[in-house]
Amino acid sequence: MTFQEIIKLHPRPASLDRDAVLRCIDECLDCAASCTSCADADLAESDVQEMARCIRLCLDCADACDATGRIVTRQTEPDLRVIGAVVKACSAACLACAEECERHAAHHEHCRVCAEVCRRCKQACDDLFAKIG
Amino acid sequence: MTFQEIIKLHPRPASLDRDAVLRCIDECLDCAASCTSCADADLAESDVQEMARCIRLCLDCADACDATGRIVTRQTEPDLRVIGAVVKACSAACLACAEECERHAAHHEHCRVCAEVCRRCKQACDDLFAKIG
Amino acid sequence: MTFQEIIKLHPRPASLDRDAVLRCIDECLDCAASCTSCADADLAESDVQEMARCIRLCLDCADACDATGRIVTRQTEPDLRVIGAVVKACSAACLACAEECERHAAHHEHCRVCAEVCRRCKQACDDLFAKIG
Amino acid sequence: MTFQEIIKLHPRPASLDRDAVLRCIDECLDCAASCTSCADADLAESDVQEMARCIRLCLDCADACDATGRIVTRQTEPDLRVIGAVVKACSAACLACAEECERHAAHHEHCRVCAEVCRRCKQACDDLFAKIG
Repeated sequence: MTFQEIIKLHPRPASLDRDAVLRCIDECLDCAASCTSCADADLAESDVQEMARCIRLCLDCADACDATGRIVTRQTEPDLRVIGAVVKACSAACLACAEECERHAAHHEHCRVCAEVCRRCKQACDDLFAKIG
Repeated sequence: MTFQEIIKLHPRPASLDRDAVLRCIDECLDCAASCTSCADADLAESDVQEMARCIRLCLDCADACDATGRIVTRQTEPDLRVIGAVVKACSAACLACAEECERHAAHHEHCRVCAEVCRRCKQACDDLFAKIG
Repeated sequence: MTFQEIIKLHPRPASLDRDAVLRCIDECLDCAASCTSCADADLAESDVQEMARCIRLCLDCADACDATGRIVTRQTEPDLRVIGAVVKACSAACLACAEECERHAAHHEHCRVCAEVCRRCKQACDDLFAKIG
Repeated sequence: MTFQEIIKLHPRPASLDRDAVLRCIDECLDCAASCTSCADADLAESDVQEMARCIRLCLDCADACDATGRIVTRQTEPDLRVIGAVVKACSAACLACAEECERHAAHHEHCRVCAEVCRRCKQACDDLFAKIG
């Protein structure tokens, strides 16, 4: 996506590993949209009553990924305590959502795919966290 | 991005033109991230005083694109009046941001690229609006 | 809420009617939180299958109100075309959500209260729109 | 605000201490709006160059508070690991923003007030975290 070019054109040198940052933003955008779509698909399923936990955790995960994607995108005057805590919280939200989506993966294809996206986003958050130390 | 697969796995048939919807979501995600990054780059420029309007319109555009991306993603029980008004507002936010970024395109490369993303997102919103009628 | 004090301490004179702005922000915050909570309450109801449209419109309304509250809060270098289009879209989202919540008001008290908040927020958006002209 | 009534009308009993939850949501809404407004006021100040870190941390804090307010509002099928990590991250964002705003409190009244709101929101997040324990 084009936003990556803009990040590379920032006037100040990056204080964080750029590849880890770009991958984290990318996964957060994809995961936020995937969870918004999976919650919406759950809502249209005939077994929606059994999908309440999945919908709730997808909504939480979308909110966490949105905020994390925005915060990690900013390169001016970063506070590493904040970024570290935020990617850690996002990782927790992705894990909980992935685990719940996996429980429905056999009967809802959208949950199977969503779980994969959540797992990738969790990994990208964990990798960025490791770079922050 | 993977979220497009999830949208295609939705249990109910789409009520809107799917290609127009997918393109609108894609552009909204890219534009939201681009505007968040451009506002942040502006903030680190030595002429930040002259960039106040650009920062403000980038922040507005990011907020409008975020909300629009989420709302357009949902396929269950859509209300076309809501979707129409939302993509129209997003188009207005993209246009204002593009015009301001273009004023700085010669001296700030990130503004030049951001203006292009905003123009593309405006077009995608206008195209979806035209399909809603 | 304290944020109103901060808005009044802004270094530049407001370009929009301040009372209309403050009321619009206040209602957007309350409506976003009310719709987030109503969607969540719907999800825990035994008739959740019948609440799909209500959940979807509550989620849309929360997203629209969040973006609108942020955009209307900003006083530096406003673009009135953007603000006008955004409050108009928010008004449409509030109306659709109010109408749907009203259909469930007799059996779900949270929908009855949520509809009232949506109606008030719609009015605040319409009033601000009228001031922009 | 009226959203508190809706939270109390939720069909399932709360799993978390209700007073701590309501206070956390209230402070998150106020803090998100305060930080959005403070960043915007900073942008209009004649010493905006010195306010870059304050603007950035206010934007981060607004994003963290928005996501936290939404996640804490939901009562259906909560995951306490997610909620705990999210309020902890929000507390870190509030602390960093409060400390930076305090540095400008003597010359920018809006920063003085914003720092107070951030301190209160941090406390409300910490108190809720303690209840989750």
